[in-house]
Amino acid sequence: MKVGVVGASGYSGEVLVKLLLSHPHVTLAAVTSRQHAGKAVSKLMPALRGTLADKLHFCDSAAPALAARADIDLWFLALPHGAAAEFARDLVAAGRKVIDLSADFRIADLATYENYYGHHHAPALLPVARFVLPELTDPKWKTEIRLAAAPGCYPTSALVPLVPLLRAGVVAREHIVVNSFSGVSGAGKKTEEHYLFVARAESAKAYGLVKHRHLAEIEEQLALVAGAPVVVQFNPHLAPMRRGIVTTITVPAAPGATIESLYATWHAAYAGRPFVTVLHAGETPDSAHVTGTNRVDLAAVHDPRTGNFVLTSALDNLVKGASGQAVQIMNLWSGFPETSGLG
Amino acid sequence: MKVGVVGASGYSGEVLVKLLLSHPHVTLAAVTSRQHAGKAVSKLMPALRGTLADKLHFCDSAAPALAARADIDLWFLALPHGAAAEFARDLVAAGRKVIDLSADFRIADLATYENYYGHHHAPALLPVARFVLPELTDPKWKTEIRLAAAPGCYPTSALVPLVPLLRAGVVAREHIVVNSFSGVSGAGKKTEEHYLFVARAESAKAYGLVKHRHLAEIEEQLALVAGAPVVVQFNPHLAPMRRGIVTTITVPAAPGATIESLYATWHAAYAGRPFVTVLHAGETPDSAHVTGTNRVDLAAVHDPRTGNFVLTSALDNLVKGASGQAVQIMNLWSGFPETSGLG
Amino acid sequence: MKVGVVGASGYSGEVLVKLLLSHPHVTLAAVTSRQHAGKAVSKLMPALRGTLADKLHFCDSAAPALAARADIDLWFLALPHGAAAEFARDLVAAGRKVIDLSADFRIADLATYENYYGHHHAPALLPVARFVLPELTDPKWKTEIRLAAAPGCYPTSALVPLVPLLRAGVVAREHIVVNSFSGVSGAGKKTEEHYLFVARAESAKAYGLVKHRHLAEIEEQLALVAGAPVVVQFNPHLAPMRRGIVTTITVPAAPGATIESLYATWHAAYAGRPFVTVLHAGETPDSAHVTGTNRVDLAAVHDPRTGNFVLTSALDNLVKGASGQAVQIMNLWSGFPETSGLG
Amino acid sequence: MKVGVVGASGYSGEVLVKLLLSHPHVTLAAVTSRQHAGKAVSKLMPALRGTLADKLHFCDSAAPALAARADIDLWFLALPHGAAAEFARDLVAAGRKVIDLSADFRIADLATYENYYGHHHAPALLPVARFVLPELTDPKWKTEIRLAAAPGCYPTSALVPLVPLLRAGVVAREHIVVNSFSGVSGAGKKTEEHYLFVARAESAKAYGLVKHRHLAEIEEQLALVAGAPVVVQFNPHLAPMRRGIVTTITVPAAPGATIESLYATWHAAYAGRPFVTVLHAGETPDSAHVTGTNRVDLAAVHDPRTGNFVLTSALDNLVKGASGQAVQIMNLWSGFPETSGLG
Repeated sequence: MKVGVVGASGYSGEVLVKLLLSHPHVTLAAVTSRQHAGKAVSKLMPALRGTLADKLHFCDSAAPALAARADIDLWFLALPHGAAAEFARDLVAAGRKVIDLSADFRIADLATYENYYGHHHAPALLPVARFVLPELTDPKWKTEIRLAAAPGCYPTSALVPLVPLLRAGVVAREHIVVNSFSGVSGAGKKTEEHYLFVARAESAKAYGLVKHRHLAEIEEQLALVAGAPVVVQFNPHLAPMRRGIVTTITVPAAPGATIESLYATWHAAYAGRPFVTVLHAGETPDSAHVTGTNRVDLAAVHDPRTGNFVLTSALDNLVKGASGQAVQIMNLWSGFPETSGLG
Repeated sequence: MKVGVVGASGYSGEVLVKLLLSHPHVTLAAVTSRQHAGKAVSKLMPALRGTLADKLHFCDSAAPALAARADIDLWFLALPHGAAAEFARDLVAAGRKVIDLSADFRIADLATYENYYGHHHAPALLPVARFVLPELTDPKWKTEIRLAAAPGCYPTSALVPLVPLLRAGVVAREHIVVNSFSGVSGAGKKTEEHYLFVARAESAKAYGLVKHRHLAEIEEQLALVAGAPVVVQFNPHLAPMRRGIVTTITVPAAPGATIESLYATWHAAYAGRPFVTVLHAGETPDSAHVTGTNRVDLAAVHDPRTGNFVLTSALDNLVKGASGQAVQIMNLWSGFPETSGLG
Repeated sequence: MKVGVVGASGYSGEVLVKLLLSHPHVTLAAVTSRQHAGKAVSKLMPALRGTLADKLHFCDSAAPALAARADIDLWFLALPHGAAAEFARDLVAAGRKVIDLSADFRIADLATYENYYGHHHAPALLPVARFVLPELTDPKWKTEIRLAAAPGCYPTSALVPLVPLLRAGVVAREHIVVNSFSGVSGAGKKTEEHYLFVARAESAKAYGLVKHRHLAEIEEQLALVAGAPVVVQFNPHLAPMRRGIVTTITVPAAPGATIESLYATWHAAYAGRPFVTVLHAGETPDSAHVTGTNRVDLAAVHDPRTGNFVLTSALDNLVKGASGQAVQIMNLWSGFPETSGLG
Repeated sequence: MKVGVVGASGYSGEVLVKLLLSHPHVTLAAVTSRQHAGKAVSKLMPALRGTLADKLHFCDSAAPALAARADIDLWFLALPHGAAAEFARDLVAAGRKVIDLSADFRIADLATYENYYGHHHAPALLPVARFVLPELTDPKWKTEIRLAAAPGCYPTSALVPLVPLLRAGVVAREHIVVNSFSGVSGAGKKTEEHYLFVARAESAKAYGLVKHRHLAEIEEQLALVAGAPVVVQFNPHLAPMRRGIVTTITVPAAPGATIESLYATWHAAYAGRPFVTVLHAGETPDSAHVTGTNRVDLAAVHDPRTGNFVLTSALDNLVKGASGQAVQIMNLWSGFPETSGLG
């Protein structure tokens, strides 16, 4: 199977190219870049020197031309929101499968999308698109959709621990507080003073309080499970590391719920899932343990004083939080083993 | 005025020695170390080469001998809890002022102390000791006590934003969730695999969930202000940086409270206080901005969706969170300008 | 083919286990650890959670018992020097192939070994052992030896650029100055204050000047090529990063040598070698570009003012500088494709 | 005495403002910035919140207007080369003392300047300007010049160890190889992808090989001492840290020179100099030990095998390598104690 990547100049684009180049069941047949068309991919991604990226060259990224490429079955969109929707329109119309890493199709409710992101460039596609978090989304998506929206990094880190517990009634749906701590690559490749090494090394800070865009997909997904609106306090932070997210969730235990019932719920939800690891008692997720993997590590404690559970998760924002998860979606969609090319 | 430091081999001990050596109103006349007695202080603290630390030598640290030194008016204890109490006993008995950087005298309630720390080695001193957070503690402490307990790093980062708001009724005293992210020096100088560079670089993780020892002093201080027990969810994390703490507090707004009333309360509480900076709208505390200073930076936002305020603070765990605050206490206690040696 | 690893508790041991677990042509059938016998490998190596390391348990490491395991064809020794020689004795005697990551068999000359490392525990094995740097060592080693010594990290970074140039007479063999900058994992997993995060973050320093142990193998290998003694000034440094080495070599150009003849020599020497990348003009090796790969990146400039070439290389000290190179040796020795399991 | 700073938006500008604001003998009366005129200085330099920088506002930076300010006796220029010369012209013409942190007046020989930097904008000032490295430059400069050029960071790290040894004939003047390893702030505040946190963290690399601009002042100063041209191989590198330089110099010992004569020469040269520390035997300079200080730490070893000395130095590129040294120059020029305001 041949696949293509539109817009690979960002951090997650590079990880995606790397994963696809070494994937045993697909050929990466096109990587587009308006700016770098003609250059060898490894020229822009020196970590990929000595691989097939030496021979692969960026091609131009006019959407109609890409849509016309009959050899490519599936396209990944590693573009900013807005731009992604525009490409999706042409590629879906041409009958290609599309896996979008942007936010454009993560949110089913158009009004919510517009509230957080502004104008939507392809609302007509929403009915054939779906937010796909493979461990949580109803597996019927594989036959029902034409476009899969890979979840955001923060949402993955919050939903994997929360959704099964909310579904099973182990936790309340009020007073949920999510604090996340992300490596700097989570902010994208922005050449601004704020993201220079000298500014970010030895520095931690909160940002995007109250209305970070990822809140939209966290709350929509939780509401779908809860059958009622869920309002979350989401506090993201930058940490002086390149990759990785740790998320710490404070959530009231439901009446009667115990730490044992919580763990039993997680074990049931994630039995046989290769990319979710429920840690043993006494272990705590550490972002460094998941860097470079497609894993989410989970742990929880119960606080009898407050009546809360404190859930903790760790993942690599560029792998399970972006490109690895996109490849996992492709694997499931295409009938490959779920772990193909993912370690 | 001559001062001494007992136990200066840790990270905060080194910062304390540095601050005292350049303090305009005191002479650092003794620095003790059982292990390094006889060596030049700068031998163990190479950052202090070229200063008076070349000429100052560690002396032995037998408590009776220290208590007998009539030339020294005030002692800082930079010791582990337990050990601190033992020295405090002799030094207070000899009529010296003592500023303790350990937890031994931060908690007024003996049962709470024992619950978190075990046996107390000098409970008889509790009546003449007090937790002194200079911006918050009733200034009468200066004449009422013989031993000042310098607050912990996390408690300072949580109490400076919370106490005035709780006192003024701007925030609720329930559902308070405190997430903190600390530089690795906050864990002390422990030669364990977990604290090696290779383990901690590029790594973030939660630790000490549910019952971190600093919770004891956070809750006791909040209860004193609230006039009723306050139960806090406290989630500390390690961040891959040497110094600095950022704390993010989710707390329900009290009925009728607004972001304006919150800021007005802070401005009133901290007017004229040189070490608390209430940031302008749109600014967020950044640990890198306070490293090396005795400052706490504060900001807040209101979330109309959740009804919460989200408060953020930043400080240097070794300065305002330890040694700088201890020097500030000395300044106030001794009648020096509050900022002497701290700016 | 089944393989085993003796002594996997260090940084390179962990990388080796990871590489072998995902290797397509071998089964990792034994991982020994005196200290952790019985525990799951992923318990000690949390980065390997969710892999076969969950099911694999450390076994005890008595050398005779290991030698008796008829199912295992090849053993890797990831032990300190001295200890490695003792295991090698029993395993070679039992007819097993051995790839040693320690220094014990890197140096052919016993007196040199003893000068740098002290007593040798198995000198009788030296005739059947060889220093194997796959790109440089005569390929006859594959049939002539019973024990392969994988080169050290610094030596690999210095020899890959230097050896072809010295062999071709492009550079002089005098006035060679090698400066290297290594990530902290290069020092091994030592729980000493010097290697704590707080000590090493934001810190660079030279160490081991004049007689670093890796000098022995650098000079012996250069002498073999030059046919005469070569004396090198080797200045290693620690850099505040986890992994990676950059090496910068100042060496006088031989009479008549040009930057073009230098590059032509490199291209000829490394044509078809998958793990050496000669960079394009204007590019400089960057340790971050090779982290996690088995690659060495190379570049050079000529300085007409001094008459020197300045050669630069970058590699990952734990991969091409240790475990990746050991796997590469196994691949070649066993007739697998050279790149199997190496990306 | 009132002083001003022209162009304070870079990293060394910020350190300079910080040092001057807390200097006991001067008042910082003007800080210019074309871009930020009117804003509070602490707005752009949040590390200076709570200091006089809250009250001080950037003023516009038209050179004639600055030259007209009769209240300001001395100006620091923290500008790019080229721009500095233009301001220097007006300020010197108006009779002000000028301390220039750029390269414009560090090089006495105009042709050399033009070779490395291109057109010089104020060559007429060269006769009244001088490269001033306080520990090395003939103290007559204090009365002979009107403009002091503060040395570059790399040159300071190389000249402090080398100059006394070359002057005393302890080392040769040929085959000198200087390798330096600098924190990222040394590259200035450039918003380029190469300097983003994600690019530079966990990354070391050589850059600027063969003809780094600082080579010009290193060689000119060495030639002045040697009385003959000195050609140096200078290999600068970036290290993943914010501040600090370590420099390692390989230089042949002069006939008869010993490590004892080397240390004796250093001790004689730097006796009574507060900012040069000759370390004890067995100690090696570490950049982290000098960060935030105006110190240079020095050590050396002799290698009997190569006949070389290996000299090592460490300094903070923004303090002794820029702003601290500029303040030290002001102190000496103005008759203040050399250490005023420098810790």
